[in-house]
Amino acid sequence: MEKLNLLYEGKAKKIYNTDCANQIIVHYKDDTTAGNGLKKEQFANKGKINASISTMLFQYLIDKGIPTHFIMRVDDVDVLCEKVKVFPLEVIIRNVATGSLTNRLGLDEGTKLNPPIPEISYKNDALGDPLINDYHAIALGAVTRTELHEIYLLLTKINALLQNLFAEIGITLVDFKIEFGKNANGEIVLSDEISPDSCRLWDMDTKKKLDKDRFRQDLGGVIEAYSEVEQRLKNYFHN
Amino acid sequence: MEKLNLLYEGKAKKIYNTDCANQIIVHYKDDTTAGNGLKKEQFANKGKINASISTMLFQYLIDKGIPTHFIMRVDDVDVLCEKVKVFPLEVIIRNVATGSLTNRLGLDEGTKLNPPIPEISYKNDALGDPLINDYHAIALGAVTRTELHEIYLLLTKINALLQNLFAEIGITLVDFKIEFGKNANGEIVLSDEISPDSCRLWDMDTKKKLDKDRFRQDLGGVIEAYSEVEQRLKNYFHN
Repeated sequence: MEKLNLLYEGKAKKIYNTDCANQIIVHYKDDTTAGNGLKKEQFANKGKINASISTMLFQYLIDKGIPTHFIMRVDDVDVLCEKVKVFPLEVIIRNVATGSLTNRLGLDEGTKLNPPIPEISYKNDALGDPLINDYHAIALGAVTRTELHEIYLLLTKINALLQNLFAEIGITLVDFKIEFGKNANGEIVLSDEISPDSCRLWDMDTKKKLDKDRFRQDLGGVIEAYSEVEQRLKNYFHN
Repeated sequence: MEKLNLLYEGKAKKIYNTDCANQIIVHYKDDTTAGNGLKKEQFANKGKINASISTMLFQYLIDKGIPTHFIMRVDDVDVLCEKVKVFPLEVIIRNVATGSLTNRLGLDEGTKLNPPIPEISYKNDALGDPLINDYHAIALGAVTRTELHEIYLLLTKINALLQNLFAEIGITLVDFKIEFGKNANGEIVLSDEISPDSCRLWDMDTKKKLDKDRFRQDLGGVIEAYSEVEQRLKNYFHN
């Protein structure tokens, strides 16, 4: 397998073609952005740490029967994945109220949400990735009703699995954003990444934020927090 | 039946208790507001026209089997209704893209939406009546899953009935907002009003707006447009 031309460059990742038509390389950058790209900074090793975390999480989910685009990590910052047609949706699930949810609904910060609240946003930078409902998503042609149903089922399973996993390493999975795509066989699979860039992770005891909110909110110690998450996961999986 | 104390004053209506515990008087005011009450004006006869239009529409829907809170119009601006516990939801359905939908989703103004798009907003002035999804509504305790399912079914039926009715009088029902409540028997019923204050109505031939957008967008001729709708409905029902 050989890395070929750049297919697409996003805010935190680059996507390369390979010499295999159905496979791509996802390259994790050190760039970190917030506020739809308005705030931007590079953190040395962030790409490597996120590739490591995302790899551990995807391998864990695959072991539990979740279909994903992940094939293998090929070096520190490069992950080989199945080429999929990504649905233009940010698929979010929230276990604890914080961020835009508390602003939108007036819920108290830290309110436990049981059952968890799923949300979908329309992935469109020009529109600011607006929150949409299921009917919007279907009207936009972003997804069919059947596909959306399957996405919600997968989302709920993935959330339950990751909540348990993070609880084992003393971390509350507050919320996270994932993406889904359709592979060459027409199967809906988890795509993109799962990392502190796309999750809110709070230490269970100290409530310390171990995710991109440290960057969004200028709390400092961004890379130390990401490393902490990586190390706890490594300790867990190597035991 | 006697009108007693004021129970609640809203932006466009006042609600009075009556000497019958399960009945209220809905009084239609001439006040017209937009932008969450920031823009405000009085239009002579608006209350009377809206009470007339809403009465005709509710009677039409009742004849077609829709459960509503409506009992009878008692004078020009007063309508007797069943007292219901209103769900804190603005229930919207859109047949043509305009307004906040085009801004949110980037759809072209005037795009026909087939099937129509339902939306719910959380009725909360302080939060600006935010768009929410079904999971938000349930998490907020605004409605149960079963109630919401019934509300969507009623919404779809009401929309089909009103689309047909307005088509008969040369008007496109672009979108509208309704509310639902639960009566003393635990039955979910259509409540609030249906009028040019709560609907977007375009003349089918000229595309002239015959609704509150004339006020929102300073187009003038507000009361003339509302009267036009009332007159066409009157002509239809008296034929």
